[in-house]
Amino acid sequence: MTDSEASLKQQITELGDKIRQLKVDKAAKDVIDQEVAVLKQLKAKLAVATGEPLPASGGKSKKATQFTLKTPKGTRDFNDKEMAVREAMFDTIKGVFRKHGGVTIDTPVFELKEILSGKYGEDSKLIYDLEDQGGEKCSLRYDLTVPFSRFLAMNSTLYQNIKRYHIGKVYRRDQPAMTKGRMREFYQCDFDIAGAHEPMVPDAEIVRIAVEVLTALDVGDFIIKINHRKVLDGMFAVCGVPEDKIRPISSAVDKMDKLPWEEVRKEMVDEKGLDPAAADRIGRYICLSGGEDLLNRLLQDEQLKANASAMAGLQDMQLFFRYAKVFKIADWVSFDLSLARGLDYYTGVIYEAVLVDSEENKNILAQEMPGQAKAPQDADESQVRLGSIAAGGRYDELVGMFAGSNRKGKSNNIPCVGVSVGVERVFSILMRKQKYEEIKANQTEVYVIAVGDGLLDERMAIAVELWENGIKAEYMFKAKPKLQPQFTACDRDLIPLSVIIGKDELAKGVVKIKDMQNKNADEAGGVEVPYTEMVAELKRRLGH
Amino acid sequence: MTDSEASLKQQITELGDKIRQLKVDKAAKDVIDQEVAVLKQLKAKLAVATGEPLPASGGKSKKATQFTLKTPKGTRDFNDKEMAVREAMFDTIKGVFRKHGGVTIDTPVFELKEILSGKYGEDSKLIYDLEDQGGEKCSLRYDLTVPFSRFLAMNSTLYQNIKRYHIGKVYRRDQPAMTKGRMREFYQCDFDIAGAHEPMVPDAEIVRIAVEVLTALDVGDFIIKINHRKVLDGMFAVCGVPEDKIRPISSAVDKMDKLPWEEVRKEMVDEKGLDPAAADRIGRYICLSGGEDLLNRLLQDEQLKANASAMAGLQDMQLFFRYAKVFKIADWVSFDLSLARGLDYYTGVIYEAVLVDSEENKNILAQEMPGQAKAPQDADESQVRLGSIAAGGRYDELVGMFAGSNRKGKSNNIPCVGVSVGVERVFSILMRKQKYEEIKANQTEVYVIAVGDGLLDERMAIAVELWENGIKAEYMFKAKPKLQPQFTACDRDLIPLSVIIGKDELAKGVVKIKDMQNKNADEAGGVEVPYTEMVAELKRRLGH
Repeated sequence: MTDSEASLKQQITELGDKIRQLKVDKAAKDVIDQEVAVLKQLKAKLAVATGEPLPASGGKSKKATQFTLKTPKGTRDFNDKEMAVREAMFDTIKGVFRKHGGVTIDTPVFELKEILSGKYGEDSKLIYDLEDQGGEKCSLRYDLTVPFSRFLAMNSTLYQNIKRYHIGKVYRRDQPAMTKGRMREFYQCDFDIAGAHEPMVPDAEIVRIAVEVLTALDVGDFIIKINHRKVLDGMFAVCGVPEDKIRPISSAVDKMDKLPWEEVRKEMVDEKGLDPAAADRIGRYICLSGGEDLLNRLLQDEQLKANASAMAGLQDMQLFFRYAKVFKIADWVSFDLSLARGLDYYTGVIYEAVLVDSEENKNILAQEMPGQAKAPQDADESQVRLGSIAAGGRYDELVGMFAGSNRKGKSNNIPCVGVSVGVERVFSILMRKQKYEEIKANQTEVYVIAVGDGLLDERMAIAVELWENGIKAEYMFKAKPKLQPQFTACDRDLIPLSVIIGKDELAKGVVKIKDMQNKNADEAGGVEVPYTEMVAELKRRLGH
Repeated sequence: MTDSEASLKQQITELGDKIRQLKVDKAAKDVIDQEVAVLKQLKAKLAVATGEPLPASGGKSKKATQFTLKTPKGTRDFNDKEMAVREAMFDTIKGVFRKHGGVTIDTPVFELKEILSGKYGEDSKLIYDLEDQGGEKCSLRYDLTVPFSRFLAMNSTLYQNIKRYHIGKVYRRDQPAMTKGRMREFYQCDFDIAGAHEPMVPDAEIVRIAVEVLTALDVGDFIIKINHRKVLDGMFAVCGVPEDKIRPISSAVDKMDKLPWEEVRKEMVDEKGLDPAAADRIGRYICLSGGEDLLNRLLQDEQLKANASAMAGLQDMQLFFRYAKVFKIADWVSFDLSLARGLDYYTGVIYEAVLVDSEENKNILAQEMPGQAKAPQDADESQVRLGSIAAGGRYDELVGMFAGSNRKGKSNNIPCVGVSVGVERVFSILMRKQKYEEIKANQTEVYVIAVGDGLLDERMAIAVELWENGIKAEYMFKAKPKLQPQFTACDRDLIPLSVIIGKDELAKGVVKIKDMQNKNADEAGGVEVPYTEMVAELKRRLGH
């Protein structure tokens, strides 16, 4: 099977899945019909390519011994160029984390099933379980926060406080949504500060870290929406939301970035049975956003002033704004009463970084995802939306859920605050911002080239000399390569310099050093250098 | 639950498992009794620590709502200090891989089950399957070689040749053997050269890479045993091993590093029904090892000369020794006819790096694994043996197993050769070679300290100044910290420098810079520097 056949087959499988999902979701008929037409075209293309009739349903072969060569649904490979971009991204992020004293830990990819139970609400159905092959029941981790909390609870005598980051894969058995780039295996990239500290200082530093990371990654202009669970809870209370409806109403508010207010209001009143007057009161609050001015207005709000939870939250926000100014991040921060965040475990400040609706940002997102070896899932990713690129908040009770369950009476809780950078989203933005062919996957600095007689052993010996001097070097694995393919290899792999040898050079004890990025310069044939000075000259040019 | 309680409980669970396994394996009664005695002691210890009666069988609690706080069997966490050592190890390895033009790819942690089927012989039973929750059947990857081959087969038009490395976790549902450090989740670290190249050139470079990696990691003196599947097959044939017994007999030979020849011979003759005369002929060959001298002797061997497979292999070995000299690695290489390697898919050169039996190596391995937060699995790791620290070989048919199955007639095979560094083993050696308390987990360079009035906002502002100038800095998350705890934090986190401020310094527009590693020097109180010169002075001292 050729690459394009494999790609076609995978596209067909994926599109089949999408259509089935559209039917389940009762999508409009013309939407489904359009997808079916694309599916038929893909099938016809594949039939031409392979010369064999296609099985009726996408992807499944009739022969029992055959199978489609693909990665599991919702997962993908990353090729060398994509990985170069990803590793540079991770290095940038780690650099910021370490600047703030961050250390890293590692936890297993799967946990005991019971560790994850009861942590994710109704999303628990998305947890991947391992087959029961005798022994413990295990599940793939759903995020990095619960394993971190489990680690803290197990090691609480040693880690009463820690600034830890963790970059690792997590798993969600979600319906992969191609248009949203939602995968079943994806990276999370978390920084958390655990410990009982001065109120709001770690919270503000976490937001500063988010600003530094997103600035260093150069993802485009962004703001950080910020809110507080206690402000939210107080606001709901003064608006007349009964205690038992606070979480469902909060979930509805969380949709304000995707749905218009009328729809959110409808969900509150029609689906969740909220008094329409209460909904309208909520509506007047959650349209508010701004800076310290908004905070001061709310501090004057007679109703909120009478609510202890709201006032506690607003006082935290006062502290937050004070530290945000010291940390020089106030310009990025927007106090936004519509920000609710879905996760139940947040107890204090919550925030979300979003790209601003600028022309520049929209232009980048409108571009196609580059890369020949891109996964078919990316086919629709050009529709990627403006949206969240980092998010987090304070969760003061999660460690206690583990630590508490094993101590009688004496709680061993550790309060935490953290941020998760949306690295998959950032990656898709970074890929759009550069030319695919200009991504250098390798780090090779010098290619050792022979003119004429091959000189394999001599090229290998020069490579050894370079490696031993810390220079990254390659040569062609061929006894008698022609000159042109060696130049082509330099071009393809974006290798800046070459060392060229021939019989004459060997006889004279010299090599030629050639700038491969600047082939038409005066030194087009390369500059002759004594062999004994080769390493020094290369290092000089490479800036070692 | 305290840390030591969690550790005790996990030790009890693990030891219970081990005892059950010993019973299954019909171990000697005194061996089992000894373990049971240890188990009883551990249980008594735990009962004292918790003040509660222990459940009858290790680890399982009577209350349904309670569960043991632990990682799944055969998995473990790595804390911040351990991760600092691991990340430095991975960075060193990546540095060598990149010096040779290596690029990296990423593949999913799980693959379609059928991709892994039929690749690992009887070890396939150790594959972890995901639960069938509707959809495709998937399994956790067992190594990185099969996913790489699947990637190549899927992308063969783009990657006819590639030097790729991959550092990632793999999974084997093995009985965790504490004494051997065998885990169910562990890292592999592979470098492979794919493509149809000049014979033995990539093979020799792979061995050079192994030598460079192990030298850079400073794991202790080692040699690289090398053999060739074609030499082995030819040797078995001339010794009189029937075709259908070659693989089983090869597996028996593979045990020569663990068992004495008499036991291996017994397995060949008694279990595998080999003619005793044939076994003795094998015995005369596989006791041979050496350098080029051995190769030359074998090239004169009349029986081997008559065998085409043996001669093809020996000619490869001639080339290998030629290139080994060019690559300056001949001193590490030992041609060893007893090296067989278990995996079926090798087709050419095979090799294995092993620590030599030196006093220095034995002393290091005899040391206890350091670290307070170490996993209980490590308890017995002081018994770690001399043994393999890297291994690999040529596998020319594996990609064809994928590519071939989807092409009619036209094979799309890509030959490969690779090496896998035994990073878990190397890690346990590196941990033994350093003092746990001297491992710096963070990279923090400067701690901002206040004398007297707390000066929280001022300390935060200085940290901002340092961060903005690329200096890694922390301060205490406390409004009015005392001086001593701030010094203690510097000691604990091995932070080299501090910036100290008090009211006097602020009034004068200066800070004090203090060398925290050299507190009794002349400048014990710190050196006064104008605030405007603080960053420059810190950078000078840090060598930025």
